[in-house]
Amino acid sequence: MPRREITSYSNPTIKALRSLREKKHRQRERRFLAEGLRLLTDARESGRVPEVLVMASKRDPHPLIDALEHAVEAAGGDVIETTPDILSKITGKDNPQAVAGAFAEWDTSLDRIDRNAASIWLVAQALRDPGNLGTMLRTADAVGAGGLILIDDCADPFGVEAVRASMGAIFTQNLARARWEEFLPWLRQGSGQLVAASLREAVPYRGAPYAGPCFVMVGNESQGLPEAYETACDLRVTMPMRGRADSLNAAVAAAVLAYEVLASLEG
Amino acid sequence: MPRREITSYSNPTIKALRSLREKKHRQRERRFLAEGLRLLTDARESGRVPEVLVMASKRDPHPLIDALEHAVEAAGGDVIETTPDILSKITGKDNPQAVAGAFAEWDTSLDRIDRNAASIWLVAQALRDPGNLGTMLRTADAVGAGGLILIDDCADPFGVEAVRASMGAIFTQNLARARWEEFLPWLRQGSGQLVAASLREAVPYRGAPYAGPCFVMVGNESQGLPEAYETACDLRVTMPMRGRADSLNAAVAAAVLAYEVLASLEG
Repeated sequence: MPRREITSYSNPTIKALRSLREKKHRQRERRFLAEGLRLLTDARESGRVPEVLVMASKRDPHPLIDALEHAVEAAGGDVIETTPDILSKITGKDNPQAVAGAFAEWDTSLDRIDRNAASIWLVAQALRDPGNLGTMLRTADAVGAGGLILIDDCADPFGVEAVRASMGAIFTQNLARARWEEFLPWLRQGSGQLVAASLREAVPYRGAPYAGPCFVMVGNESQGLPEAYETACDLRVTMPMRGRADSLNAAVAAAVLAYEVLASLEG
Repeated sequence: MPRREITSYSNPTIKALRSLREKKHRQRERRFLAEGLRLLTDARESGRVPEVLVMASKRDPHPLIDALEHAVEAAGGDVIETTPDILSKITGKDNPQAVAGAFAEWDTSLDRIDRNAASIWLVAQALRDPGNLGTMLRTADAVGAGGLILIDDCADPFGVEAVRASMGAIFTQNLARARWEEFLPWLRQGSGQLVAASLREAVPYRGAPYAGPCFVMVGNESQGLPEAYETACDLRVTMPMRGRADSLNAAVAAAVLAYEVLASLEG
């Protein structure tokens, strides 16, 4: 399909793109939005090409934009030029970047995960804050984890805020979604150490006997992990809590633990 | 002042409380809102009593609510009972908790900080995300830090989102705000090691020669620290980056570093 120019807010394609900012439309369409040349380039280099690429009609030329356009055309996608105002309506930002893309969501079933592809995996249970979820993806990338496994009812990883907070890791990290009742049997089919921060029968997180593939699990922001999930862990660890509170932000706890596991497995 | 009941949205006190959700009003009034019995109890136990306490007229009795009310009355504050609807308008949440309070902001000048009161301090430069700022306060509490020093133009630590993310640490941690041009001379007046994550002339963060009082600094979410600020550090450390990205979320980086400093100083 050749490049098209659209200048009307009421164009059906524009309206469909705008609707992707809402969860219900996103879930019905199974498509999501990402914005910015850097993010879209990360996606392309990870083999993820948008179905629809939207570019501001007045933009500075850039070889990476050209590369994106070619990739989308080669994949049979749609390339649209539009006004900065309309681009701003699509992305919901006052200062939109020059490009945005609508991607098809991909399969996030657990059986696509190859646990032996990495020695660290992050697991989040009922995580409700999309910023925390995106931050965990970003941390997973940084520690060289294989990906993030979402257990029970989590925030939508394809929501705008999660995608943004992931800083591109949504495209590079493996992502799976499962109920606990599916996850635990899957985990026990092979090797894999399930680790969580806990206050019960736990050992200090420094120097604990981590073993890869190590699955670092954190729970819901206000409830923490259900007791039965903690009990099912192979290793429960405690982090020092020197103040009044007895917990950390979930994404922070995951990161402190994951870096400790990384040092332990590589040390 | 005795307890008053207010049932009108247009009551000036209610309007003034609602306006505190906006930064411009908050900064003019130098007052801020906090919500929830746990948060207000943390505040009270840390010696911070709201000037105005607002309670839902239909609420379950609770000894901690009674304690709050007595504390506010003893301090000459205002105790208001109102409808759940009005309380919801004040806090901006659909499901408000039973109590909220308006607190006077306190002095955040650097000369109130006693650096020898703790061996770890967190420093944030031009941090723009209020959630990150609140999360850093929460982490500071957890590692037993003395507090958080905000450098240059940061998000408002008294904003609703920062207060909420701090999980009460806004009331228990020391907080200072300063320009870099004030902070650096202040730091050099006494002992204090300034540490930042950096890619330039840095040593691995594990096993680096940390020394208390250690000031762990992170920079702006998108720009990082200015080069001159990095140069001024006593110690530059690197964290492993095994993925595509070269940085962590700012609050995550601060936490991973702070836990390493804690282990080093206590080990």
